[in-house]
Amino acid sequence: MRRGRRPGTSTTRQAILDAARTRFASDGFAATTIRRVAADAGVNPSLVMQFFTSKEELFAAVMSISPKSLASFSTVFDGPDEHLGERVVRAYLEVWEGVPEDSEPLMAMLRGAIANEQAAAQLREFIQARLLEGMGTGSVDNPDATLRAGLASSMLIGLVVGRRLVGVPILANADVETLVRLMAPAIQSVLTRTP
Amino acid sequence: MRRGRRPGTSTTRQAILDAARTRFASDGFAATTIRRVAADAGVNPSLVMQFFTSKEELFAAVMSISPKSLASFSTVFDGPDEHLGERVVRAYLEVWEGVPEDSEPLMAMLRGAIANEQAAAQLREFIQARLLEGMGTGSVDNPDATLRAGLASSMLIGLVVGRRLVGVPILANADVETLVRLMAPAIQSVLTRTP
Repeated sequence: MRRGRRPGTSTTRQAILDAARTRFASDGFAATTIRRVAADAGVNPSLVMQFFTSKEELFAAVMSISPKSLASFSTVFDGPDEHLGERVVRAYLEVWEGVPEDSEPLMAMLRGAIANEQAAAQLREFIQARLLEGMGTGSVDNPDATLRAGLASSMLIGLVVGRRLVGVPILANADVETLVRLMAPAIQSVLTRTP
Repeated sequence: MRRGRRPGTSTTRQAILDAARTRFASDGFAATTIRRVAADAGVNPSLVMQFFTSKEELFAAVMSISPKSLASFSTVFDGPDEHLGERVVRAYLEVWEGVPEDSEPLMAMLRGAIANEQAAAQLREFIQARLLEGMGTGSVDNPDATLRAGLASSMLIGLVVGRRLVGVPILANADVETLVRLMAPAIQSVLTRTP
């Protein structure tokens, strides 16, 4: 066989994904390590990092979650406070109700976690890690920052459940601008309001 | 057989529940009528009303939802605006996370609706009717009132999904007073804030 990256790249990437899927399912997100996945796939850990950058991104790739969707889990909370509520509501609606490539893997993951305890365990560990990581900076000023981000996410997931999973007409038929107008101040409040 | 109410009451009530369960499942909540359920059960419609008062309460009884839980779907939004957010957050947490007799049927109904389209159709019609009915008074001043109540409910259901169904630790471990402190202003905002 010839040396060089090209011939084996997609096969290697797929072998890593397959190993990661099995490992996340058996050990959960928190206990799974890049090193272990690399060993399962028979590759060097640095190659896993080269393909996927982090354990979060490896998990997202296993779940077919797009990079934009992944960002919505936490980094959307970064940035200046002004219009934070509006920005967060728009970002969530965009990934959860946008193009099917972004929204369908998320819906599948949410449905799966609600139906199946093993899938729920993976997802809860992933979200927890993502929340803790996303709130690394700025949390000194606001000790509730991680909880606040988790609550804002929950409230927006509730909107997705009402609109897309249960499909209550009055929620499903509301247009995005109305949702932003009514929800942005509430999300702003849960993220930033001091008692 | 002797005349009198007692001997047949529980059998009659059960026959109505069985007929209603079948009818709600086949026709959905909106298209099902008390008259039709009564015909299916071979009783007079007035007897159905005597046992269950309304179609909403009949549906709740079929789903094993307690009267207190049923009230949380909408009537909690009635009353003076001051402390409305706090009252609503407490009421939701009380029924969704309170004694198992109240919370388990709700969780089962929510899980069922997320897993199964027929169950989702029933639930969405029920919630829609409940929202429209609950917002009958006072909505002249606030044309978004029904949507606002639906959004507040969604946001609180999202909290239940995060805490109980997915079980993200940072959400599941938060105590009720912290949740009330952080979420009450947000729920107050979505229910009452004028643009």
